[in-house]
Amino acid sequence: MIKIAIDAMGGDFGPAPIVEGVLQALSEASFEAILVGKRAEIEPLVPKGLESRISYEEASDVFDMDEMATDALKRKDSSIYKAIELVRNGSADAVVSAGHSGATMSLATLRIGRLDGVSRPPIATLMPTIIRGKKTLVLDVGANVDCKPEHLFEFAVMSEAYAQQILRIQKPKISLLSNGEEDCKGNETSKAAFELLKKMDNFVGNAEGNQVFDGSVDIIVCDGFVGNILLKTAEGVSGAISKIIKRNIKESAIAMIGAVLLKRVFKKLKNDVDYDEYGGAPLLGVKKCTIISHGKSSPKAIKNAIFQSIKFSQSNINEQIISKLASYNQ
Amino acid sequence: MIKIAIDAMGGDFGPAPIVEGVLQALSEASFEAILVGKRAEIEPLVPKGLESRISYEEASDVFDMDEMATDALKRKDSSIYKAIELVRNGSADAVVSAGHSGATMSLATLRIGRLDGVSRPPIATLMPTIIRGKKTLVLDVGANVDCKPEHLFEFAVMSEAYAQQILRIQKPKISLLSNGEEDCKGNETSKAAFELLKKMDNFVGNAEGNQVFDGSVDIIVCDGFVGNILLKTAEGVSGAISKIIKRNIKESAIAMIGAVLLKRVFKKLKNDVDYDEYGGAPLLGVKKCTIISHGKSSPKAIKNAIFQSIKFSQSNINEQIISKLASYNQ
Repeated sequence: MIKIAIDAMGGDFGPAPIVEGVLQALSEASFEAILVGKRAEIEPLVPKGLESRISYEEASDVFDMDEMATDALKRKDSSIYKAIELVRNGSADAVVSAGHSGATMSLATLRIGRLDGVSRPPIATLMPTIIRGKKTLVLDVGANVDCKPEHLFEFAVMSEAYAQQILRIQKPKISLLSNGEEDCKGNETSKAAFELLKKMDNFVGNAEGNQVFDGSVDIIVCDGFVGNILLKTAEGVSGAISKIIKRNIKESAIAMIGAVLLKRVFKKLKNDVDYDEYGGAPLLGVKKCTIISHGKSSPKAIKNAIFQSIKFSQSNINEQIISKLASYNQ
Repeated sequence: MIKIAIDAMGGDFGPAPIVEGVLQALSEASFEAILVGKRAEIEPLVPKGLESRISYEEASDVFDMDEMATDALKRKDSSIYKAIELVRNGSADAVVSAGHSGATMSLATLRIGRLDGVSRPPIATLMPTIIRGKKTLVLDVGANVDCKPEHLFEFAVMSEAYAQQILRIQKPKISLLSNGEEDCKGNETSKAAFELLKKMDNFVGNAEGNQVFDGSVDIIVCDGFVGNILLKTAEGVSGAISKIIKRNIKESAIAMIGAVLLKRVFKKLKNDVDYDEYGGAPLLGVKKCTIISHGKSSPKAIKNAIFQSIKFSQSNINEQIISKLASYNQ
């Protein structure tokens, strides 16, 4: 039985939504959960009768969102440190954390360790597109702000394995984020990465920011600085549009009736672009599955993050990453 | 009387929308227009009786959108080259072009020339925010893909002058685009730029991608690679949301009635985020006003680009850029 360590304390809203997500996941999938954190706070949230599927790992400390990721290694009693240790020592197969993403990332990289051939583990996230059911995998979205061309190449190789093993896309269209579609576009780093990426059969060239959402490619590779800006810009635009529409609706009675009639359309839009549907972003290139969820994760997001970690742990993605990277390094 | 040279040929839709925009501008503002391009194609679009306010500069060649900007200098008979030359030789005070932006930019930089103290002229664009009437100035959005910290500092100084002279914001909140708001966030270049920007009284620190749209800052500085990606991402998200809403509306009769009732709300949204309202992005740091418009500019966009160029030419922005840069270089 697959064992998933869950940092029950790290999220913005405390243990309640996280434990609720774990309970939902347990009712739908077969796995064992290890809840890491202050047992006295967590256990009252768990109904009786689940003793065989839920265990606890005491952690007296919580690593706060506003702390420096560089301090994470010293905080050996924090829930995120202990959750990572469970994976490191083989007591768990995967870890899901809605806590400090930088801390999760550096602890996973340093304590669980990188796969052979991986220099920098990237965070890969799925973004919605206008094509129903189709997502674009974007990486790195924040783990590595300064990247060399070789790092971007490694990200592409890892994302190809992820697309093939987890998303079931055998020939993913891999692209490089740039300031234009033409081969000649890019900054110094991306131009050098473009040359390296030509080695990959599935590399289709440069992609522009709007291609994240049009479904024209499966994977977009960038450094973590640009990836974070892309993510926040996308959030900012959709948040702004929704606010402007709501404000304008409030100013007119006719519009308010229209909005009621359109309620289902707006709800559908929310579902189409719903982050909770996948629930978290995997850190690729570490020896065991590490899923990084949003601090504001809902129970549904945590449930889906756990499902992702199960799928990841049951796949051969890590073996494939190692062998792909080795084949290019020959 | 201010004289504006307009590349009448460079846009995606030929001279018609550009000439129409010029005519609209002439009916509302006091200036003289020099239409640059194939006179035989342009003149039939102009009604009689405007001879005193419209003149023509023959240009037999058009620099196409898919050509390399590096070839622009050789194409001496192109409409963009000739429009820039009119400014260079003093026959015009400003140039407006909806043609190849790279060509416009490099011709303006090389032929009109940079202001004292300016290393790299950036393109500055205004982005809509959730606060009605408030825009965020973002630069560079594409002129310079690889930037040194000093270049980002210069962009900030130029944008401050623009905000004060053109936007009438005396104490603009200037920020640096980064992967987090905290002072410690950033890549190598942005961190070094952060240190330089501390010299500016109006520098308020790092901003994230979503802050472009929330009205919390007036200016966001970034390199042209990231700026282009930010712009395209924003376009992509708003385009995707509009497409998903339209598709979902079509699937339900009730929703279609709702959409009719909401027509004015959607129209208002379009106005709130309307690019045409400012019509073009100035290239800052060159000796004369150069406005770069979108290839797909409507007549309204061209009209507003001309208004911008008039405002720019009547201001002291260039003197202020020179003196501000000089004061920091002492």
